[in-house]
Amino acid sequence: MTVPLPDSKRKLAAAVPSPLPPLLYEETVRRALVEDLGRAGDLTTDAVIPVEAAGYARVVARADGRVAGLPVAAAAFWLLEPSLQVELRSVDGMDAGAGETLASVRGPLRAILTAERVALNFLGHLSGVATTTRGIVRAVEGAGVDGVRIVCTRKTTPGLRALEKHAVRCGGGANHRFGLDDAILIKDNHRAVAGGVRPAVERARAYAGHLVKVELEVDSLEELEEGLAAGVDAVLLDNMSPADLRQAVEMCRGRAVTEASGGITPETAPEVAATGVDLISVGWITHSAPSLDVALDVG
Amino acid sequence: MTVPLPDSKRKLAAAVPSPLPPLLYEETVRRALVEDLGRAGDLTTDAVIPVEAAGYARVVARADGRVAGLPVAAAAFWLLEPSLQVELRSVDGMDAGAGETLASVRGPLRAILTAERVALNFLGHLSGVATTTRGIVRAVEGAGVDGVRIVCTRKTTPGLRALEKHAVRCGGGANHRFGLDDAILIKDNHRAVAGGVRPAVERARAYAGHLVKVELEVDSLEELEEGLAAGVDAVLLDNMSPADLRQAVEMCRGRAVTEASGGITPETAPEVAATGVDLISVGWITHSAPSLDVALDVG
Amino acid sequence: MTVPLPDSKRKLAAAVPSPLPPLLYEETVRRALVEDLGRAGDLTTDAVIPVEAAGYARVVARADGRVAGLPVAAAAFWLLEPSLQVELRSVDGMDAGAGETLASVRGPLRAILTAERVALNFLGHLSGVATTTRGIVRAVEGAGVDGVRIVCTRKTTPGLRALEKHAVRCGGGANHRFGLDDAILIKDNHRAVAGGVRPAVERARAYAGHLVKVELEVDSLEELEEGLAAGVDAVLLDNMSPADLRQAVEMCRGRAVTEASGGITPETAPEVAATGVDLISVGWITHSAPSLDVALDVG
Amino acid sequence: MTVPLPDSKRKLAAAVPSPLPPLLYEETVRRALVEDLGRAGDLTTDAVIPVEAAGYARVVARADGRVAGLPVAAAAFWLLEPSLQVELRSVDGMDAGAGETLASVRGPLRAILTAERVALNFLGHLSGVATTTRGIVRAVEGAGVDGVRIVCTRKTTPGLRALEKHAVRCGGGANHRFGLDDAILIKDNHRAVAGGVRPAVERARAYAGHLVKVELEVDSLEELEEGLAAGVDAVLLDNMSPADLRQAVEMCRGRAVTEASGGITPETAPEVAATGVDLISVGWITHSAPSLDVALDVG
Amino acid sequence: MTVPLPDSKRKLAAAVPSPLPPLLYEETVRRALVEDLGRAGDLTTDAVIPVEAAGYARVVARADGRVAGLPVAAAAFWLLEPSLQVELRSVDGMDAGAGETLASVRGPLRAILTAERVALNFLGHLSGVATTTRGIVRAVEGAGVDGVRIVCTRKTTPGLRALEKHAVRCGGGANHRFGLDDAILIKDNHRAVAGGVRPAVERARAYAGHLVKVELEVDSLEELEEGLAAGVDAVLLDNMSPADLRQAVEMCRGRAVTEASGGITPETAPEVAATGVDLISVGWITHSAPSLDVALDVG
Amino acid sequence: MTVPLPDSKRKLAAAVPSPLPPLLYEETVRRALVEDLGRAGDLTTDAVIPVEAAGYARVVARADGRVAGLPVAAAAFWLLEPSLQVELRSVDGMDAGAGETLASVRGPLRAILTAERVALNFLGHLSGVATTTRGIVRAVEGAGVDGVRIVCTRKTTPGLRALEKHAVRCGGGANHRFGLDDAILIKDNHRAVAGGVRPAVERARAYAGHLVKVELEVDSLEELEEGLAAGVDAVLLDNMSPADLRQAVEMCRGRAVTEASGGITPETAPEVAATGVDLISVGWITHSAPSLDVALDVG
Repeated sequence: MTVPLPDSKRKLAAAVPSPLPPLLYEETVRRALVEDLGRAGDLTTDAVIPVEAAGYARVVARADGRVAGLPVAAAAFWLLEPSLQVELRSVDGMDAGAGETLASVRGPLRAILTAERVALNFLGHLSGVATTTRGIVRAVEGAGVDGVRIVCTRKTTPGLRALEKHAVRCGGGANHRFGLDDAILIKDNHRAVAGGVRPAVERARAYAGHLVKVELEVDSLEELEEGLAAGVDAVLLDNMSPADLRQAVEMCRGRAVTEASGGITPETAPEVAATGVDLISVGWITHSAPSLDVALDVG
Repeated sequence: MTVPLPDSKRKLAAAVPSPLPPLLYEETVRRALVEDLGRAGDLTTDAVIPVEAAGYARVVARADGRVAGLPVAAAAFWLLEPSLQVELRSVDGMDAGAGETLASVRGPLRAILTAERVALNFLGHLSGVATTTRGIVRAVEGAGVDGVRIVCTRKTTPGLRALEKHAVRCGGGANHRFGLDDAILIKDNHRAVAGGVRPAVERARAYAGHLVKVELEVDSLEELEEGLAAGVDAVLLDNMSPADLRQAVEMCRGRAVTEASGGITPETAPEVAATGVDLISVGWITHSAPSLDVALDVG
Repeated sequence: MTVPLPDSKRKLAAAVPSPLPPLLYEETVRRALVEDLGRAGDLTTDAVIPVEAAGYARVVARADGRVAGLPVAAAAFWLLEPSLQVELRSVDGMDAGAGETLASVRGPLRAILTAERVALNFLGHLSGVATTTRGIVRAVEGAGVDGVRIVCTRKTTPGLRALEKHAVRCGGGANHRFGLDDAILIKDNHRAVAGGVRPAVERARAYAGHLVKVELEVDSLEELEEGLAAGVDAVLLDNMSPADLRQAVEMCRGRAVTEASGGITPETAPEVAATGVDLISVGWITHSAPSLDVALDVG
Repeated sequence: MTVPLPDSKRKLAAAVPSPLPPLLYEETVRRALVEDLGRAGDLTTDAVIPVEAAGYARVVARADGRVAGLPVAAAAFWLLEPSLQVELRSVDGMDAGAGETLASVRGPLRAILTAERVALNFLGHLSGVATTTRGIVRAVEGAGVDGVRIVCTRKTTPGLRALEKHAVRCGGGANHRFGLDDAILIKDNHRAVAGGVRPAVERARAYAGHLVKVELEVDSLEELEEGLAAGVDAVLLDNMSPADLRQAVEMCRGRAVTEASGGITPETAPEVAATGVDLISVGWITHSAPSLDVALDVG
Repeated sequence: MTVPLPDSKRKLAAAVPSPLPPLLYEETVRRALVEDLGRAGDLTTDAVIPVEAAGYARVVARADGRVAGLPVAAAAFWLLEPSLQVELRSVDGMDAGAGETLASVRGPLRAILTAERVALNFLGHLSGVATTTRGIVRAVEGAGVDGVRIVCTRKTTPGLRALEKHAVRCGGGANHRFGLDDAILIKDNHRAVAGGVRPAVERARAYAGHLVKVELEVDSLEELEEGLAAGVDAVLLDNMSPADLRQAVEMCRGRAVTEASGGITPETAPEVAATGVDLISVGWITHSAPSLDVALDVG
Repeated sequence: MTVPLPDSKRKLAAAVPSPLPPLLYEETVRRALVEDLGRAGDLTTDAVIPVEAAGYARVVARADGRVAGLPVAAAAFWLLEPSLQVELRSVDGMDAGAGETLASVRGPLRAILTAERVALNFLGHLSGVATTTRGIVRAVEGAGVDGVRIVCTRKTTPGLRALEKHAVRCGGGANHRFGLDDAILIKDNHRAVAGGVRPAVERARAYAGHLVKVELEVDSLEELEEGLAAGVDAVLLDNMSPADLRQAVEMCRGRAVTEASGGITPETAPEVAATGVDLISVGWITHSAPSLDVALDVG
């Protein structure tokens, strides 16, 4: 139902994130369509558009940004009406200029117009996440800092985690944990209840499987030293000054991966990156990213 | 499982939006919990927090804002662990200052820490929508314009429409259509395929049930006149200048409800409101609202 | 999987109700198939019919009636076995005579026989609703009364509302509310708790979005006057005598849509219609319609 | 959440059908509530009824009939709002007179009014099936014919089979197969494809598990003889005259259970019953039973 | 998506159990895929295998056994990626030698490797059940005992009953009840609460529909006699000695089907079978069958 | 609904695995109950056991083993009937002797008998996995080898992965990956397609998040050296001789975790463990574990 990308674009696509298996989002798209259709379906289209009208429409970026969620948007069309022909003109992870056509759809006009909003809601939201991620990634690159990775958090929109994590990758970022079960991250509350850094890390190490890493959130260099001594794989350096970060990076060299976190913005990111941390984690690229403006042009 | 609000706050609550029936969001919350728990559950908490540890935590606003989604956040706690006692200290639709406690939770610490992120993700997202809505509502009120309503659109996050529409009401806004099936809204694409305003509106009128209203999107005063003649209930005045809006309002008086739309911001809203339109619709209060900063403090 | 209708019938179909998007009923059909298959599947067919037997069967009306649910019945076949070729010979909303073939199915006989009952249960039930609706519609038309619409209520079979509302349209009727959320209908109980017609209507008006209409149920002309004064869009005139209905219609002219309700039958409908009301609402066309007799003939 | 029946009624209840485990219908009720609530919930009630209003309502029969579905209706109330106190005043399988209170509900008025229609739709539909069943059961009993059982078929409303089969038991009837997988019933189409009665029955016998019975549909006494010779457990005597039925009963004595079927009505049932058949099966008690009139009285 | 079997094998297949309708297991397979994919999908494959790599793989038996679940395994491939071409080389119910290719898959390598484990888990588990069943079936046949059937019980893996019952048929066994609702089986606990064999059987007979058989579990010949007198269709002879079994068979001749049960193994089965019982039921062929070793060979 | 364990046992419980959040298995239990109830529910119990009969039953181990799944079994009782009082007498992860009572249930006898089989199926299956795991864990401990961990694989029963992984922990084992998404494990097929160990590992490292570990399967010491050079976190040493394992352990010291795999049994495990590997992985503890014999004693 989806026409594959021309070869020229496919090559570019090799540099972009792996596509998600549709099995991971089809149910989400189906639910979104039903959410919009309600019980009675699309009253306007059913009233106004003749059942036999067929046509052609383009999904267009109205602003410059980074594309994410194109196959998800395509799924909105063909899950509603399998006879719709969706042709992708871009690929998740590529940049798009204002006015650029990202995909085209051909077939019954009723179905095109009925699926439009759901398709655009996914595409706009996910491209918004990707574009916002691209912003801070570029800020760091623009400052000439190499090797630091921008990572997202678990502060995602309920129900859309896998898709938003994918969008972060499309924006040039990387992913932190996908959930509570794929790594250990000891935060203040855990530490406090456990009675300190050492017992917390020891319990974590004893509990973790051999492929599970342990990260520790620390507020000070003292805690950091304690954590390193206890043998953590990574440390989350929370709200530290650039000076402290620099020293922390020194302390961790060869011992643990370093992640700076806490209110970092595109403006402050270059300075943080310059401290030598491996990762900068930011929640707002998923929970507060403005949508990218995308639209459907018929005819 | 949720302790009711003290009477003093209940009175205030009478002025705020109707609570949603839990049946409308419990499944969404359950799915979000499973999304975070994955298959193995909360490795960190299971490793570090003793199973018998019990305690107390507060859900706190870290910034000034408008509350929305408090019962949804509460559901995250008690759906994970029915023995958790959640006490609401605020009500959806009320303002909260930075540092204010919005709810408290008492019971097994493991469950509190495991449900934390899902609870905060809902509360932060929905309060973000409410706070953003409050912003433009206040901008208009601050300009001394009375009687205009700020309304949201169908540009919502997939899967969260009912909750985001509720959050808009919490912010002082009102709701446009909930989906494709509860009213007719004829847009350009419909008009174009139908062959003009008149045939589109006529078909819509003939199709609509006696409780279904018909709204027409128009780009010019000519189209507006044509639509009014055809008998629409409401008109969406798309991207019109204040002067045109003013004239449109004149033309519609006693004939149709007027809705201004298209790139309106808190800055431009007062001027638009001053034209006398009944409604200002904005998509960004749902699709681009930054999350409100909320946190969980243990102990 | 479903062969489209020949052009000759398609033209007729233009006059019939919009087809429902399959997304709105496929899950319901799938659940009905599983309800019939149980855990072990079709013991009889598996025992008696060779796995390789292929054949042809016709879905036939055994009585005169109005067709509704044909694509739903078709879905029962192809959801069970995608290789089945279903050819529709009629269209939802058309009349069928006893003995008329409504659809044909070709392919593995096991699948045809296994899906038979579910397909017929949907088709018989929905065509029963359509045929019953047609009955009262014709009674009114036969009496020479023009312009009155027969509408259904929310008294539908749990789980089948969208389908039964569609069947009512197939029968020539129109739809009232689809649920509690697409319009306001103030009934006696609401009025009583609110403390009268005026406060009830005022609260409703204040609460309703700009595309939401307000209807009021009244038992007397006094209440009607009070409701009209308060500005309702429509009135449900409950169990009124023809004389009162006539006067009510007079009072409502240009002010509100009028709906007669309460124990109206095909016998009394013409007299009610003659009073000039806009709508006659009847619950029994959905909750008490006898099934239309349909069958599957093999070979 | 449901208050148990007083002892006096409980004794009567001992004579009535086993209650269904709620697990078998709760999901169906939940889905029906969501079907009615849509996305926005009950606009009318939210607008008009104060959130703190509490009250009392009675579920009342408006006509004489046989009760079925009372716990299902109760579930509609407490699944929407667990704090509602539902008190059953009758029991599934008992008769009710017009005006009789079947249950009462106490608690938040909003929840009572919002759940009302779903509760009544279940109760009215299922009691309609029970009442219709009672009609034909009584017709046969009234004619002084003993020992014949009225049984239903698989011609049930999609999604409601278990509930409708229960309603038939409430009406004094018995159940035929619940689905395709709990017994073998060889019909004409099977017989035709298999090449006759003998091969069909032989394959069925060979295929059937030791707890699976085999029934054969026959149109003539010749086929009946062939079936009996092949060793069927039961025979469905389709559309036979009373004379043929009488002879069939003779032939089957001590060899197979006899079931008369095909267009039997309350009027013709006594004559059919008098032939001595064990069972009379009728599809219309499930697929064409008019709803029983039930209502909710507040206050 | 699945290429049909060549004719040569199809003929053999005629002797094997009926295939299950995919509707009965597709949801189970989809859930298993999601269980394995989690939120992030197949990290290894996405990291290491180029998106455009296509190839060919064979599903191979690593040990001698009886095949069951081949279409289920195939579904794991095409539900993940509809473009995968799965070619079945064997049929459920046939024997396979170590090294034999059971199916081949051609298409995108990523999808093949991602679906591999789920496909093999189904195939290995179900073929394990079939092979274990075959073992005891052969033990009895090898001892020259004819006509006794090996049947499974309700001791199945939660969620997989229909599939495991199918696997038992593939192994040459037969099925006992599929669940609590398709026959009556009175066990000790029922008997004890009912106050003896007679009242228990009488209540069961009165309750059972005309196509529902009644089986009674007995521990002694006295109970057996009592049960036969009360008119049961079948008896489960629990943990009886061969001598008692032999006498029980004598007593039941022409009156009831006999089923031996209780700790029977392939070693003791021939002796039990020699007593003349109709059925030997064993729970361990479903709940304790070791998996058959199957693997996927790429290239 | 479940009575908590007495304090004496609770202390022991502190040494056992974390309980799973019920949210992770309740839906699975509900589905298993429906799978057993079918459409008509428990015919036997409904026929034979009076609706008012209440009683008491014990869940008893019939053989010596390791308990797992007790809260899951308890859920089967209270999900069917919330008024059932389940009292746990043991804890997941503890040993049980033949005849030991693991839990008791008090309440309506119908519900107890109806839920019995589902409760026992979960408990027997999961305790079987735990007991089998305990067997190989003890074999290694008995041989005086310390510090090696027995781990399971992804060869689990479809739909039960989280529960079986928990059962492995109850048996004293540890868990490998929960799915395809929580760590990278490069197998032969990946290596072959990637063109060797080095490119495969390099791509994996580049792709992996900072909390994702990379494990490599190797067949020879050459591959091992190549993998270590490329910087893997762990190695799966497939089917190596004890001598090779010993050398591999030497090579990996301080560089990577070592996992021996491939046909290891309780008999061969001690010798493998003696080589100094960190982990021994075995698939059969999940896919081929015989069920533990558990039963329900009433009265």
